Amino acid sequence: MTDFSATKRLFTLPDGVTYLDGNSLGPLPVAARDRVVSCLRDEWGELLITGWNKAGWMAQPRALGDRIGRLIGAAPGTTVVGDTLSIKVYQALASALTLRPGRRVILSDSGNFPTDLYMAEGLVRSLDQGHRIETPAPEDVGDRITSIGDDLAVLMLTEVDYRTGRRHDMAALIKAAHKVGALVIWDLAHSAGAFPVDVAGADADFAVGCTYKYLNGGPGAPAFIHVAPRLADRVQPALSGWLGHDAPFAFDPDYRPGPGIERMRVGTPPVLQMAALEAALDIWDQVDMDALRAQSVALCERFIEGVEASCPDLTLASPREAAMRGSQVSFRFEHGYAAMQALIARSVIGDFRAPDIIRFGFTPLYIDNGDVDRAVATLSDIMATRQWDRPEYHTRAAVT
Amino acid sequence: MTDFSATKRLFTLPDGVTYLDGNSLGPLPVAARDRVVSCLRDEWGELLITGWNKAGWMAQPRALGDRIGRLIGAAPGTTVVGDTLSIKVYQALASALTLRPGRRVILSDSGNFPTDLYMAEGLVRSLDQGHRIETPAPEDVGDRITSIGDDLAVLMLTEVDYRTGRRHDMAALIKAAHKVGALVIWDLAHSAGAFPVDVAGADADFAVGCTYKYLNGGPGAPAFIHVAPRLADRVQPALSGWLGHDAPFAFDPDYRPGPGIERMRVGTPPVLQMAALEAALDIWDQVDMDALRAQSVALCERFIEGVEASCPDLTLASPREAAMRGSQVSFRFEHGYAAMQALIARSVIGDFRAPDIIRFGFTPLYIDNGDVDRAVATLSDIMATRQWDRPEYHTRAAVT
Repeated sequence: MTDFSATKRLFTLPDGVTYLDGNSLGPLPVAARDRVVSCLRDEWGELLITGWNKAGWMAQPRALGDRIGRLIGAAPGTTVVGDTLSIKVYQALASALTLRPGRRVILSDSGNFPTDLYMAEGLVRSLDQGHRIETPAPEDVGDRITSIGDDLAVLMLTEVDYRTGRRHDMAALIKAAHKVGALVIWDLAHSAGAFPVDVAGADADFAVGCTYKYLNGGPGAPAFIHVAPRLADRVQPALSGWLGHDAPFAFDPDYRPGPGIERMRVGTPPVLQMAALEAALDIWDQVDMDALRAQSVALCERFIEGVEASCPDLTLASPREAAMRGSQVSFRFEHGYAAMQALIARSVIGDFRAPDIIRFGFTPLYIDNGDVDRAVATLSDIMATRQWDRPEYHTRAAVT
Repeated sequence: MTDFSATKRLFTLPDGVTYLDGNSLGPLPVAARDRVVSCLRDEWGELLITGWNKAGWMAQPRALGDRIGRLIGAAPGTTVVGDTLSIKVYQALASALTLRPGRRVILSDSGNFPTDLYMAEGLVRSLDQGHRIETPAPEDVGDRITSIGDDLAVLMLTEVDYRTGRRHDMAALIKAAHKVGALVIWDLAHSAGAFPVDVAGADADFAVGCTYKYLNGGPGAPAFIHVAPRLADRVQPALSGWLGHDAPFAFDPDYRPGPGIERMRVGTPPVLQMAALEAALDIWDQVDMDALRAQSVALCERFIEGVEASCPDLTLASPREAAMRGSQVSFRFEHGYAAMQALIARSVIGDFRAPDIIRFGFTPLYIDNGDVDRAVATLSDIMATRQWDRPEYHTRAAVT
């Protein structure tokens, strides 16, 4: 059983800050600093080029992938880290499409994170093979699978909606998609480290995700990709880089994909970012995911209850039923942007998503009941005294 | 005028090591450690999500790109960092092909680094539009451009051959390719930071490169891409990620490419790696590239002269004429692998490239005449006493 009062001490959080934005960028694990300094000083500085073998840099994408694998229900040897999530989405989709030649539809939803749809758009345009992307409302995806039927090539969804926190029924949608012969790609950006995921149990074909949100790998930490073992040796990589080659250092003129998940590697992995991610995963290795989920639900419920009791102008945008949510709670408010600025000014950090959503991530590793209560009290005060109405809170920054 | 005896002190090099492998992985700049620690502690740790604006993380890919731009002759605003070199090759090639519809040939050469050819192979297979890749010997590229004529879509070359150090005549090949209406992509992996490059003066269409070799950005440092300003607003990105969108934080459902080089951005940039790269570029900002080239030529000539005078069994694999070389010197030797292992055992670090090349990078920022003389003396001793014949030097590691 994980002791969440102990894990909080493993993170560096600025004094007085209640950080409810770990679903955008997780905080700094205390151990990350020493781990990265050691990577610089003892590995890069001392071992130089030999670090690729002697410090294990070359093997690190697989090792880190396996540790993430445990959190998402993937068997060892089926997950690898590298690149950005956008690239991993492209890689998964390009691979999936070649496994379903002749089928024309990529089905996603209107709640998917834009970059997933943008990457799909770019791929479809490049291929110029008549694919089309459909994006119904999240709740209509199941019916749409059936109506598209055998023209459905790939179902590509983000499990948890980045605005509302609504969670798809992964197992049911995979079952429906497989029934019409389609492949399924899950973006776990808001799932990995948020609750237990079981990609193998649900029979997912591909899963991708980032490591800088719930996993706390740091700004720009590498993404991950999982491919079901039954597909991994059949996939022809579109992004056929040398580190996915069967023998990268043979410098063969022709590409020959490496075994299984190895072929999803592309270029030289980001060693410093991997060092920070390693420190973050040292914490995750100790976490019981069912206990984490129970605590996450408790924090979310406490927050919903507190806000609904004290802020009548806010409307819950997240599903009320815990099983339908990820690990965030969102409310709608016409002046949401300003309200969030007012909260941030008072050291309660969440974020805003256009047009009117204020969003709060609940991350049991370092957020407790006291943080929830402080956030509720601050938000109620801001709403009761209309602090959001101050002009300084209405100027928009590029990133919120 | 750059004082190269002073720049050596700006790098951490292990005691007693002569490091002639900076063309694989540059050494640690002394200032990188503090810069990365500050990025962890003061930025990620303290600013958390607001670091994207307050610490300038979001603007960093452009800022670093401009600083690299100076080294490669690219105007400000035409170069951006991100991803790996493999991804940047794919991005450039996919973009170039869409600008030359109907043309079928991608011309490279047999000396190109394998991942460039692999990425092209993967793209061609995905597109399935009848493109073919031709790889004549490096010295035959000029003639081949003419013989392919108006079926040539893209000429894609690495300026300096990673094995021999042979350097293409960039300006002449661009001129020939443009004459038949083709576009040109240069991989500057062994050029950026090795000698002055003038992509604008030579009229290159695209240039890509990595920052962990001569530029000393650290293991897994991000790559860069330059697009000629006359093309930058016409390119339709295949890798259309959210950070290349015209308004990334508007979360539009449809992709709309950002202005100019912005559209070559894809996903979230690697903040820790960028911090290390920034420290490396602080040094480069002070370097006179013509002085660097003169010193590089002097070091290479001294090495060639020394080795040829004392090691009759080694055959120069690099061009004898300095103008035809990059900043490395390669020799052929049947037992090259073992000879390099023997050198490394005696703290002279170069590398080996199959089947028989031993390779030495000369990097004036931290390599001086004393290093060259030590390398020559050690190599001569190994050759004269057949130390390469010891069995322990014949076991192959995965990375050399």
